[in-house]
Amino acid sequence: MSSKRKPIRTAMGYSTPDRIVVRGFDLPGELLGHINLGDMAFLEMMGRIPTSQESVLFNALAVTLVEHGLTPSALAARLTYAGAPESIQGAVAAGLGGLGTVFVGTTEGSAKLLQEAIPDPKNPGDLDALAQKIVADWHARKAILPGIGHPLHKPIDPRTPRLFAIAREQGFDGPYIALMERVAAEAARVYGKVLPINATGAIGACCSELGIAWTACRGIGVLARAVGLVGHIMEEMHSPIAKEIWTRAEDEARDHALGTRSES
Amino acid sequence: MSSKRKPIRTAMGYSTPDRIVVRGFDLPGELLGHINLGDMAFLEMMGRIPTSQESVLFNALAVTLVEHGLTPSALAARLTYAGAPESIQGAVAAGLGGLGTVFVGTTEGSAKLLQEAIPDPKNPGDLDALAQKIVADWHARKAILPGIGHPLHKPIDPRTPRLFAIAREQGFDGPYIALMERVAAEAARVYGKVLPINATGAIGACCSELGIAWTACRGIGVLARAVGLVGHIMEEMHSPIAKEIWTRAEDEARDHALGTRSES
Amino acid sequence: MSSKRKPIRTAMGYSTPDRIVVRGFDLPGELLGHINLGDMAFLEMMGRIPTSQESVLFNALAVTLVEHGLTPSALAARLTYAGAPESIQGAVAAGLGGLGTVFVGTTEGSAKLLQEAIPDPKNPGDLDALAQKIVADWHARKAILPGIGHPLHKPIDPRTPRLFAIAREQGFDGPYIALMERVAAEAARVYGKVLPINATGAIGACCSELGIAWTACRGIGVLARAVGLVGHIMEEMHSPIAKEIWTRAEDEARDHALGTRSES
Amino acid sequence: MSSKRKPIRTAMGYSTPDRIVVRGFDLPGELLGHINLGDMAFLEMMGRIPTSQESVLFNALAVTLVEHGLTPSALAARLTYAGAPESIQGAVAAGLGGLGTVFVGTTEGSAKLLQEAIPDPKNPGDLDALAQKIVADWHARKAILPGIGHPLHKPIDPRTPRLFAIAREQGFDGPYIALMERVAAEAARVYGKVLPINATGAIGACCSELGIAWTACRGIGVLARAVGLVGHIMEEMHSPIAKEIWTRAEDEARDHALGTRSES
Repeated sequence: MSSKRKPIRTAMGYSTPDRIVVRGFDLPGELLGHINLGDMAFLEMMGRIPTSQESVLFNALAVTLVEHGLTPSALAARLTYAGAPESIQGAVAAGLGGLGTVFVGTTEGSAKLLQEAIPDPKNPGDLDALAQKIVADWHARKAILPGIGHPLHKPIDPRTPRLFAIAREQGFDGPYIALMERVAAEAARVYGKVLPINATGAIGACCSELGIAWTACRGIGVLARAVGLVGHIMEEMHSPIAKEIWTRAEDEARDHALGTRSES
Repeated sequence: MSSKRKPIRTAMGYSTPDRIVVRGFDLPGELLGHINLGDMAFLEMMGRIPTSQESVLFNALAVTLVEHGLTPSALAARLTYAGAPESIQGAVAAGLGGLGTVFVGTTEGSAKLLQEAIPDPKNPGDLDALAQKIVADWHARKAILPGIGHPLHKPIDPRTPRLFAIAREQGFDGPYIALMERVAAEAARVYGKVLPINATGAIGACCSELGIAWTACRGIGVLARAVGLVGHIMEEMHSPIAKEIWTRAEDEARDHALGTRSES
Repeated sequence: MSSKRKPIRTAMGYSTPDRIVVRGFDLPGELLGHINLGDMAFLEMMGRIPTSQESVLFNALAVTLVEHGLTPSALAARLTYAGAPESIQGAVAAGLGGLGTVFVGTTEGSAKLLQEAIPDPKNPGDLDALAQKIVADWHARKAILPGIGHPLHKPIDPRTPRLFAIAREQGFDGPYIALMERVAAEAARVYGKVLPINATGAIGACCSELGIAWTACRGIGVLARAVGLVGHIMEEMHSPIAKEIWTRAEDEARDHALGTRSES
Repeated sequence: MSSKRKPIRTAMGYSTPDRIVVRGFDLPGELLGHINLGDMAFLEMMGRIPTSQESVLFNALAVTLVEHGLTPSALAARLTYAGAPESIQGAVAAGLGGLGTVFVGTTEGSAKLLQEAIPDPKNPGDLDALAQKIVADWHARKAILPGIGHPLHKPIDPRTPRLFAIAREQGFDGPYIALMERVAAEAARVYGKVLPINATGAIGACCSELGIAWTACRGIGVLARAVGLVGHIMEEMHSPIAKEIWTRAEDEARDHALGTRSES
């Protein structure tokens, strides 16, 4: 019942008694003190250290996704911490679990749309025609265009012009950002309402300019939000809100079940 | 059955239609393009943007903890991804779950030891006497001193001198690093063997110099390792090893149970 | 910035000083000692206590999914436990994370196929025609039919005839099992190879007979596997294998990176 | 750099083309249709099928821990589901993460206390003297006795008399339950207030009677709560509350930050 064996390989890193190698670099000598955490994330994901231009843009993308206040993800982490304060890692893990198709994970949608529309950024084709075709297709399927529209941030999502400005300052003024802008404009025309490019749309476009595959985009959201969740747990340690959220919900449900709460 | 309500407050951030505020800063205008991901982690944890000196040291601490090859944590993430490739966040969450008292979480042990020994770094007292007392106490309790010794990295852990050099270059040459060094020297004398300060010991000492409470140290490990786990999942996408690890384990156990494998 | 509030309600349960109510039942008086854990799962999911016939079948479905040896999920849980032995819950959580579209989660696929084909089990229509249409559709799309075929268990999956026998003994001999059998036979004919109904196919059909919505089927797998993962952690406590799996993988990768292993 | 290899073994189970073996039993032939899910959990944890007496008590213990309404754990699972509805397993995993030292995990505390006090249940010694010594020790250390007292369920926790009655009906009327009762009575005397044996105390005593090691007790809570969390996700699918809990918290925090909410 033996089967043919494949080798176990990794390019991520390894250690010997006197060396720690990460992605081919000597960790103490070549990375510590030389690159920041965002560059390290780029190295982990892309296998090379970013240029200084890539570093600025990539760090900005990651920083964008760190913190968004009392999100469901942050609340889940805090409620988990309340039950297992000895396990910070478990609280952060719980918070990450919700970064799926509704929140954060959506970054990959716009990147996929853009990268499928422009497989080769050196030959992007007619961007206006692409934008019209994309919006027409999604409109016909009654599907929600990824990266467009926001329930709160109207008429513009303030992160988008800033991220696009940083991209342009750093020399990433390519066809993906241009297509995203055309898609948003065409969508506004076809749907007849204000449809800003939201942060996930901007990030999807910038990732595409950086050569990051759409399948990897959710990963940036996951690592960035892990940073933010650690921040929430630090605050929960000294200014807890989890117990209050719990008891309010529990009391309201109980009072209703018992018929002891007058409904307004 | 109503109970007295406490308010729900957070200093982490909030959003309005035209603003996204993080830790009191305007995210697009004051943070994006201005700070890197490590600085953002510092801001999340400490409530303020680091100085340039703090930034260098804090980023180095975080970068140290990102990647250590095929750890149990990385393997757990990869095995989870194999079952649910649609859920990168679930794979990273699984990998984080193991950052407990055996791995990574140990950072907090040395920070606790140092911060309890020196409550006020401006009045550290006699460091030699402190080191002797600490080693004598732990030795008497037959407990393993945190931050000292390493199964692989001998006679020194190559990360430690580099981190301490960075700390000193950036002006963090305080009593915590000094005490950690004295504890290691005293432990080597008392135990009669080579006992290097390991990376968690170095990080615990540097965190203490930065004013980071020991209760927060595990958080740095968690957010750093989240970055590394995303890297492992990116590699698992195109160079998978999870299935091979699984089938080897399963086959060996089955062959033994059936008596069809000759034991060496 | 206030928004209209919706009430917080739940039918799952609540507590008062002298009562604990679960799904409308008094937990101590009406459930403890009266129903087993599988019945409790049915009550939680369906809102009512199963009949004795439903109890036998539902418990059999759940028991089927508890244990399958050293799966990726079990290995992930054990590797997580190795790093955080103080957190059994974190190890089980890690193991659950992999129950996605590749493993266990597949139960919902066959249930969805069957329930969409027969919306009303009292009027199932012509099952042979349905089976032909289903197989033709999936074959034309070059998609893999859910619930059919198994890499190991050939020519039959031994769980399937047993589950169908239990279903029939308990009076659940309805159109969903019949359609599943016809789909398998038709698939074998069209694809020209042996294609057994696998356990997920059998469970999907039995869930459909029990009136369990396909969207809920993955839940049975999740709760059942949680039982199995606790079992693996209990074994890992006294007969650990995680460290061996880790060091083998790590050593092989390192030896390759260093060129110190002769490849066979 | 090779190291000595240990074998990979498990007694949990394995599969061959025509067999699925779990804990030495043929799954289809010997387990399906013959044992319920609680018995399967006992088999997984203890390595043998329970007697009918053990089955009744063990199932009652597990059923006790399944559901307790809108707990922090249930809320965390629901909030996670809101972000990743495609990943039921991730939501349940998030909910499990909080079963630590504050909730559910506490079951192990009373079992530990009892099992350390009575290493050999056949020679329990003087239970009154044991109880006095235990309470005096914990009182002197100003530590909170595990298994005693409850914030809501006063003067008695209604689960406790029922579980003890079931235990006695099934022939488990041993020294651990007797000691737990004496500890509670002595604690009430020493602390001068009503201190009921709570559910975790009752479960710890019953587990001890069943020969379940205290280190395994948290596992029962984890698997039982996984059942309950699946129930909550099923309800969240059709009667969601996560979004409401989120927006209430977010709005209140934002209004306070903006100074637009008058505090009562």
